Amino acid sequence: MEHLECVFCNRHYSLNIFNPFCPDCREPLLFPIVTREEKILFDKSESLEKFINFLPIEQLDQNLFLGEGNTPLLPLQNLMSKFDLPLLYAKDESRNPTLSFKDRGTAVAIQKAVSLNISKIGTVSVGNMASSTAAYGAKAGLKTYVFVEEAVSQEKLLSTCIYNPFLIQVKGDYGNLFEKSFSIGKKHDIYFMNSVDPFRIEGYKLAGLETFIQLGQKAPKYVFVPVSSGGHLIGLMKAFRDLKSRNLIQEIPKFIGVQADRCSPLAKAYRSGKFSFERIRNPQPIPYAICNPNPPGGNIVLKWIRQNNGIITDVSDEEIFHAQRLLAEYEGIFCLPASAATLAGFLKLSKNLDLTQNNTTVLVLTGSGLKGLKLLNISKTRIFHSTISTLEHTIRQIV
Amino acid sequence: MEHLECVFCNRHYSLNIFNPFCPDCREPLLFPIVTREEKILFDKSESLEKFINFLPIEQLDQNLFLGEGNTPLLPLQNLMSKFDLPLLYAKDESRNPTLSFKDRGTAVAIQKAVSLNISKIGTVSVGNMASSTAAYGAKAGLKTYVFVEEAVSQEKLLSTCIYNPFLIQVKGDYGNLFEKSFSIGKKHDIYFMNSVDPFRIEGYKLAGLETFIQLGQKAPKYVFVPVSSGGHLIGLMKAFRDLKSRNLIQEIPKFIGVQADRCSPLAKAYRSGKFSFERIRNPQPIPYAICNPNPPGGNIVLKWIRQNNGIITDVSDEEIFHAQRLLAEYEGIFCLPASAATLAGFLKLSKNLDLTQNNTTVLVLTGSGLKGLKLLNISKTRIFHSTISTLEHTIRQIV
Repeated sequence: MEHLECVFCNRHYSLNIFNPFCPDCREPLLFPIVTREEKILFDKSESLEKFINFLPIEQLDQNLFLGEGNTPLLPLQNLMSKFDLPLLYAKDESRNPTLSFKDRGTAVAIQKAVSLNISKIGTVSVGNMASSTAAYGAKAGLKTYVFVEEAVSQEKLLSTCIYNPFLIQVKGDYGNLFEKSFSIGKKHDIYFMNSVDPFRIEGYKLAGLETFIQLGQKAPKYVFVPVSSGGHLIGLMKAFRDLKSRNLIQEIPKFIGVQADRCSPLAKAYRSGKFSFERIRNPQPIPYAICNPNPPGGNIVLKWIRQNNGIITDVSDEEIFHAQRLLAEYEGIFCLPASAATLAGFLKLSKNLDLTQNNTTVLVLTGSGLKGLKLLNISKTRIFHSTISTLEHTIRQIV
Repeated sequence: MEHLECVFCNRHYSLNIFNPFCPDCREPLLFPIVTREEKILFDKSESLEKFINFLPIEQLDQNLFLGEGNTPLLPLQNLMSKFDLPLLYAKDESRNPTLSFKDRGTAVAIQKAVSLNISKIGTVSVGNMASSTAAYGAKAGLKTYVFVEEAVSQEKLLSTCIYNPFLIQVKGDYGNLFEKSFSIGKKHDIYFMNSVDPFRIEGYKLAGLETFIQLGQKAPKYVFVPVSSGGHLIGLMKAFRDLKSRNLIQEIPKFIGVQADRCSPLAKAYRSGKFSFERIRNPQPIPYAICNPNPPGGNIVLKWIRQNNGIITDVSDEEIFHAQRLLAEYEGIFCLPASAATLAGFLKLSKNLDLTQNNTTVLVLTGSGLKGLKLLNISKTRIFHSTISTLEHTIRQIV
């Protein structure tokens, strides 16, 4: 019998996949820290297989793999030189099958769904999670229900529709829709693998575990993560808690959650010393993915970040788009604005961090810039117009 | 002193990086088959390091890596069941840093550029090669010149501009622009790493070498590749020629090049038994990347495909878009139409292939569907509209 834990009331509950929330606190339930002795399976090449002993999954069905994980940890050599910084890396989660970190979580949740003979899955998403869930649902041959906002962009619709899920554009408050999805799921046996699903969060651990391996079995000193619903940060912290519980690392990295200052309920609560966040009412629409006005994992993030001596900060649009360009122009990495927020946060806080020689910082880049082309401002770019016969002349002016 | 070979007149020439074409035949020059004894370095995790002994590169500069290669070889289990087919795999090259196979080639060419202290690079591209070259140029800190068609889509412009190259939109015939780039490059010391650049082609080999490892050090029986300029197919064939020359495989796979039937100069030449193709004059504009009316590597492709008892075929738009949906709906893979053409070609030819039990087929998927969102037709998709209060009703109708 599987048990989930409420990190607030410290009680354990048996798993109810259709409603994984604490009956008292209403907070998301999580799998307890793994304390098993079993090892990392270094001879396996698939990430899920390598770290199977860290997952609440008995046996993996290889037919559900889409080649998730094994994402590169890229040293940001040019930015280190430019800003005279010590070891700075990007964990590039955009290199997952549907180009975002969401695949880590979906890959684990889909394993559970299939092992339980669940035939219907669903998700509530503003973007990346929609395409990820639709892709794995297609691979698994499950009926897949995707709830998106009425105002979803054509771009996001297309990259989800291609997998042919049942896609429902829903008018109304997004937070209420999140709640509603669980009652619908329970009634119709649809497993809604939403943002703070406990299996999804277990999947997010694998980027942390891979980072540990890629750094030569060491933990970084700092990890910067964009925070929307909170699930991703919780999963990454859990990875290092697991490693510590097995004595594989001495110290858990300090986590820095980054939000956009136009909608940053957790950074606000962190700064004012509160233990629970206040929902942002009527948030300004922000076109990128770190703007959850009512993050379901928010209170866990606040609790764990405090225990960890971490930080939750927020950055402006200007800082975010500047960081996005820095990553592209200096490092050849084109990521979503939400991902670039990690670099913006790092540049903002770097003076307050202990960046001595061997202290490594990892920025977790969550998604590909190709998923947010419309957000780009290319007014500052160098575009020229020419004909073949005037090309020589054009080149002479810019060489 | 490095030498390149003309596969038509069989003569060798010393490398001229600014003009790597045979002075007699005007065909692209290639590196000769590697016959060194050195091994695959299995203990390395980066693809370039693992296969360094197959590349015309002395020493690798790790600062130029963007995490290219190590792309998954995905078994297409659901399509095998649906069509009652034996072993069918997709080598998913969209999982490279800028989401296409082009990065394989750029990663090698940029190593050469930096080792030669070249400070300016360039490319002529309709799409994927532009963003790839701009990304690696940014990482290497080189001045990067990208020539694109005047009519390039906004989508393609944006995904290249983000790296801030000098981008020149050029009016005029694309074939002439390709020629012109080399004279401009020679004059201004700009290394144009175009589609059939010999270093680029060496980079393309690595997808073939990885496939060999991923199949348990065996060659597939068939490899399907989309053909535009021809460089990619030449590189992949070269990989298996290298393996054979070292006695690592007995037989080179049969290669099947696939073109779009609206512009298929090589399939036409192949069918009519010709040894050189006829340039297509005034081709209809086709919005995807396998429509080069005058492929610079075309005659090498024809020669090698014949030697190999391979095939060059072409498929219709309808077949291509059907295949694209099959890959998404059955396998959770969203690729470009040009990539899906491989599945279309396979379905068209499968009755004529020897698909007995142990014969493996590999489809090479060249780029991510996110790069061609505008090409999608979602008229057949299942989109519903609802409010939160009517959601229960909507779901009941489709569960």
